Amino acid sequence: MPGPVKLAVIPGDGIGPEVVAEAIKVLDAVTAQSATTFEKTWFSLGAARFLETGDVLTDADLASISAHDAILLGAVGGVPGDPRLKDANIERGLLLGLRFALDHYVNLRPTHVYPGVPSPLSNPGDVDFIVVREGTEGPYVGNGGAIRRGTGHEVANEVSVNTAFGVERVVRFAFAQAAQRRNKLTLVHKTNVLTFAGGMWQRIVNEVAAEFHGVSVDYLHVDAATIFLVTDPARFDVIVTDNLFGDILTDLAGAISGGIGLAASGNINPDGAFPSMFEPVHGSAPDIAGQQKADPTAAILSVALLLEHLGLTEEAAAVTSAVTADIAGRSSGARTTSEIGDAIAHALGA
Amino acid sequence: MPGPVKLAVIPGDGIGPEVVAEAIKVLDAVTAQSATTFEKTWFSLGAARFLETGDVLTDADLASISAHDAILLGAVGGVPGDPRLKDANIERGLLLGLRFALDHYVNLRPTHVYPGVPSPLSNPGDVDFIVVREGTEGPYVGNGGAIRRGTGHEVANEVSVNTAFGVERVVRFAFAQAAQRRNKLTLVHKTNVLTFAGGMWQRIVNEVAAEFHGVSVDYLHVDAATIFLVTDPARFDVIVTDNLFGDILTDLAGAISGGIGLAASGNINPDGAFPSMFEPVHGSAPDIAGQQKADPTAAILSVALLLEHLGLTEEAAAVTSAVTADIAGRSSGARTTSEIGDAIAHALGA
Ligand SMILES: CC(C)[C@H](C(=O)O)[C@@H](O)C(=O)O
Ligand SMILES: CC(C)[C@H](C(=O)O)[C@@H](O)C(=O)O
Repeated sequence: MPGPVKLAVIPGDGIGPEVVAEAIKVLDAVTAQSATTFEKTWFSLGAARFLETGDVLTDADLASISAHDAILLGAVGGVPGDPRLKDANIERGLLLGLRFALDHYVNLRPTHVYPGVPSPLSNPGDVDFIVVREGTEGPYVGNGGAIRRGTGHEVANEVSVNTAFGVERVVRFAFAQAAQRRNKLTLVHKTNVLTFAGGMWQRIVNEVAAEFHGVSVDYLHVDAATIFLVTDPARFDVIVTDNLFGDILTDLAGAISGGIGLAASGNINPDGAFPSMFEPVHGSAPDIAGQQKADPTAAILSVALLLEHLGLTEEAAAVTSAVTADIAGRSSGARTTSEIGDAIAHALGA
Repeated sequence: MPGPVKLAVIPGDGIGPEVVAEAIKVLDAVTAQSATTFEKTWFSLGAARFLETGDVLTDADLASISAHDAILLGAVGGVPGDPRLKDANIERGLLLGLRFALDHYVNLRPTHVYPGVPSPLSNPGDVDFIVVREGTEGPYVGNGGAIRRGTGHEVANEVSVNTAFGVERVVRFAFAQAAQRRNKLTLVHKTNVLTFAGGMWQRIVNEVAAEFHGVSVDYLHVDAATIFLVTDPARFDVIVTDNLFGDILTDLAGAISGGIGLAASGNINPDGAFPSMFEPVHGSAPDIAGQQKADPTAAILSVALLLEHLGLTEEAAAVTSAVTADIAGRSSGARTTSEIGDAIAHALGA
């Protein structure tokens, strides 16, 4: 990549700044010797910024972020129930705001059970799959409304909007991933109930399948998929699913693979029209913020996804192996957030 | 109850008839000595009937079923991918058809880890909770549509419809259950994204909470709820949630508690305006149908819920303890469907 990579860093709220500090430490360590350098711009966005200025995501913020090559985000969201945040909805305004504005139509969430990680499952098996979650449609579009609000006659609707354009591009991405992995794609939806949206997803998967002869395709209802995620998660290679089902399945996937503290994600615009954004799947966890209790591993693995996305394959692999080694050596003795980051950065030569 | 209980029996498809046969065996055994007798009417409904007659659920079916005091259902649905069923959607037409027509606004799904049951979780803990799933609203209403179908410009929408009337009645039922249990109610939704529907659910839970001072209330996003279902399922007492989230959570709950073969459910109209319907959570499993491989326990536990609903508390408790004892004595040696039913019926005096 010619010139430095322009990286927008959004530490956010709660444990966000702590885990991002370690992620950056690791990024610096792994790129210290590489030809590619990173030029970072810090953005102060999130609940704290909203409480100071009243802004969640301004046009100027968006323009400035868009001018970067990639984004690293920690976590956003204030203390639940904070009355000052009542009407703000930082998650919708900022996190979904960025995903939608930057057309992050692929929300890529890998799940891997690392050797040595304690799983709540007695026998998880050899788990290594990715969820390709659609990121710009479905029930997340915000097309809801209510009448007679606050009364006993209220009607509150939510519209899931799904387009052939939007579904096809993410399905195509998922097939391409499967073709580079174990050649298995599972569509998850609820076609027996959501017949319109589900029918279209099924049709498009069938159509795109014709272009990927090597990839075998199966289908699970979302309820059945949760069963398999606890009884036989090793059966999955690539799951492709809508925005809401993907949200649910990836938290569950994080839990079975040893905790949401390890789950990384990429919000990707494969077309490259907008910068992609990498973030841990976990939230801002205000209850443990500032205490050096958070596990920065998910944020660090998000850096690996970011490096991979930028084509820095060797650096990505180095981060992943340093993390794998670190996890394998973990004992029950708790380390601080920065001790974990230091150890991984150190393994990478820092 | 004066006079015999008029019970509509819908064995359905696949393993439905097999498991229902055992459920009826157990019902007969436990009521052999009781003052209450059961008058059963068998209804031949499901994929098989549709293939014969072209009917899924006629007005006459509905009128006849409605004239009963309660319904026992096995499972419905043909072989997935059967081209003759392509446009039928037996699940929607029949199962959801009954739930909606008979105003089954409470879909009650208990989860209990029975002593001796192998769970996929290494340490499930003391799991005993119920999910009160709304049964007549949400994304299940069928208010979807599509334009430009089959083209690259298709738009397929699904509308989740939620009413204060519908939410309040199910929330009130859930609070009443919590007050009779461990006084803890968890609302599960996705309020940060589905702000209209989620906001109304949250408001109504807050309002009804004021009438149930003894019940403590908490809230989880649906994604976080799936995490707790695998990391700490014992934390739950009563979960109240919408139709789709309830569908997902109860399959997961079935899986962690030793398999969907044990999960019973009641589709309840608490007002008594329509007969309530009891059914195992599992589907028709055409792949193992007719082979005496299905576990009839979920169907038998559905009979316990049915007896409870009819006020036959002692009989309900007898079935539950016979099942508990049977489960505790299970070895890895497989028994046939009817062997399991025989054993439980025998323990009840048959
Ligand atoms: C915070 C929330 C809006 C978000 C989502 O639902 O997508 C989160 O749960 C996630 O999965 O990244
Ligand atoms: C068969 C299907 C329509 C049904 C549902 O989604 O409610 C089933 O999954 C259930 O949970 O009873």
